[in-house]
Amino acid sequence: MVPLDLAALAAAVPRVDADARASAADLQRQLTKPVGALGRLEELSIWLAGVQGRCPPHPPGRPRVVVLAGDHGVARAGVSAYRPEVTGQMVANFLAGGAAVNVLARQVGATVRVVDLAVETEVPGAGAETTRHKVRRSSGRIDVEDALSVEEAKRAFAAGLTIVDEEVDAGADLLVPGDMGIGNTTPAAVLVAALTGAEPAEIVGRGTGIDDAGWMRKTAVVRDALHRARPKADDPLALLATAGGADLAAMTGLLVQAAVRRTPVVLDGVVSAAAALVADRIAPGALAWWVAGSRSTEPAQHRALERLGLVPLLDLGLRLGEGTGGLMALPLLAAAANTLAEMATFDSARITDRGPPRG
Amino acid sequence: MVPLDLAALAAAVPRVDADARASAADLQRQLTKPVGALGRLEELSIWLAGVQGRCPPHPPGRPRVVVLAGDHGVARAGVSAYRPEVTGQMVANFLAGGAAVNVLARQVGATVRVVDLAVETEVPGAGAETTRHKVRRSSGRIDVEDALSVEEAKRAFAAGLTIVDEEVDAGADLLVPGDMGIGNTTPAAVLVAALTGAEPAEIVGRGTGIDDAGWMRKTAVVRDALHRARPKADDPLALLATAGGADLAAMTGLLVQAAVRRTPVVLDGVVSAAAALVADRIAPGALAWWVAGSRSTEPAQHRALERLGLVPLLDLGLRLGEGTGGLMALPLLAAAANTLAEMATFDSARITDRGPPRG
Repeated sequence: MVPLDLAALAAAVPRVDADARASAADLQRQLTKPVGALGRLEELSIWLAGVQGRCPPHPPGRPRVVVLAGDHGVARAGVSAYRPEVTGQMVANFLAGGAAVNVLARQVGATVRVVDLAVETEVPGAGAETTRHKVRRSSGRIDVEDALSVEEAKRAFAAGLTIVDEEVDAGADLLVPGDMGIGNTTPAAVLVAALTGAEPAEIVGRGTGIDDAGWMRKTAVVRDALHRARPKADDPLALLATAGGADLAAMTGLLVQAAVRRTPVVLDGVVSAAAALVADRIAPGALAWWVAGSRSTEPAQHRALERLGLVPLLDLGLRLGEGTGGLMALPLLAAAANTLAEMATFDSARITDRGPPRG
Repeated sequence: MVPLDLAALAAAVPRVDADARASAADLQRQLTKPVGALGRLEELSIWLAGVQGRCPPHPPGRPRVVVLAGDHGVARAGVSAYRPEVTGQMVANFLAGGAAVNVLARQVGATVRVVDLAVETEVPGAGAETTRHKVRRSSGRIDVEDALSVEEAKRAFAAGLTIVDEEVDAGADLLVPGDMGIGNTTPAAVLVAALTGAEPAEIVGRGTGIDDAGWMRKTAVVRDALHRARPKADDPLALLATAGGADLAAMTGLLVQAAVRRTPVVLDGVVSAAAALVADRIAPGALAWWVAGSRSTEPAQHRALERLGLVPLLDLGLRLGEGTGGLMALPLLAAAANTLAEMATFDSARITDRGPPRG
């Protein structure tokens, strides 16, 4: 048995730095612009100050994408437009640097780690950094069986904790959780439905681009899995075992431990939103350490973020996962930090602050 | 008299490259992601290919912000939260590198030029690059008098053409029009109302942050100016003279000439959206060369962009102008170009393209 004390973990989540937040809000009022004129960039600068514990905050210097990869038994139930072997092929693509997440990470100065939690196939060339946390090959078909045993769910969750420790100890100052797994929007939808009370038809999306018949199959699978999952809604690890998967369990652990390690997170698409809902059940204070990067086209993401009170920074119609939606928000974080740190103040630039118009 | 042949100018606007667009759309279908999964980044990559005439397009390498500064007589009518002398003070702030536009430009690899078209005060330290296109000091109070003479409007419009020539000849490969002028959202709202039929109350916003009484004064000013402007709605230069200003006239010229010079533009806030509406009347093909960077909080911007069929890439609650909303979109353009150019294809990465699920 993996020893896991969720209550102790939740208690280890620190508060963000209220003094740094207050200093940032105060500095915002002195900058040479109308108060509020930089909109969400101002909020973000205050958030960054809080999570970094300093004002002004610096732009994240060592952002790290952690792509958690795993296959899902439901991929064989016709819920995806792609064959399951694509998961392993895409992991190889990540390792070769050819996927969207690699290109976008290079652009914004982030690096990418891919971790195989439950890929079905062997990935040629995958080293220990990729494979050392593997829990099993694929996961159960959640409409008819559990995704994982509870023991496997614990191991996957604990892997998420360890991965954060590895990354933060190596210098990462911001994490973007990414996902890769053909079929993974199906368990994500089930988790969101189980935790929000949504009906399957409200939250099932098109994933990689399924047609109407595929959407109907997927909705039926979500309905059947949800029937199995609902009784576990109050037991996060049992829920992840019943209707999640090793990748989702690891991502849940990652999100909690990032907060424990005072490391900000930019959430990605529907898979990270589903994991965030579960993580929020485990450690309600953790979400102060997260922002939502991009609105995806998956309705389950909207429902999950709404429940968490997180409003995505971007809405570009993304539906790729991999961490791409989180990465796209990094220039906004840099802009938030840079404007707060570098803009002149009304005093320093000798500019007349707002006063009564002359009439 | 400045000789200005608007019909010849309109005829000089080239079409974007349809072949490059088609090649980009085709290449998008081969990349290792579901078709459409990168959402608006895919559209943007196709747009960039069309305006650059090459596939894949490159990320803009020499983006240039041109901030067009001018004062407005209406600022003395209580339509702004700031005193008019702030315009000149902010121009000095731009020249010193301390404004938001400077900080954001540095971040995204752009440079900033500020041009004084009609600032009321002397700006200490402003050189010829800044002052050589100055048309007059401030502009008329448009609720009771014309902003400019028609001759001044032509000179300002022509300045916009010349500025584009100067910048493109110096190597700029993308332009972001920025604005600085206390009170400038008032003439922008009048232009939008005159060209869309909107009622003042539908499109008057809070500008730099006026209170309810200020909003009522501003709406009354817009109503009075609109009464004077509506008869000129079909004569763009007369309209700019009656209800615009030298900065707005120059920006209109800039937007047309950018298209003539095959140079893409990222629009900023409400001032550039109003100028774009006027420019579209002069040269209807020019808008193929423009994208909208950020949704501002000004309703007149929404109305203008809706009329032009342009959907902003970002919605961050910005209301600063200066070009900041345009600059924030540059990382998205880079992401669009980089993903198209650098991602592996299904063939090159030996990944199974979408096929029937195994069932």
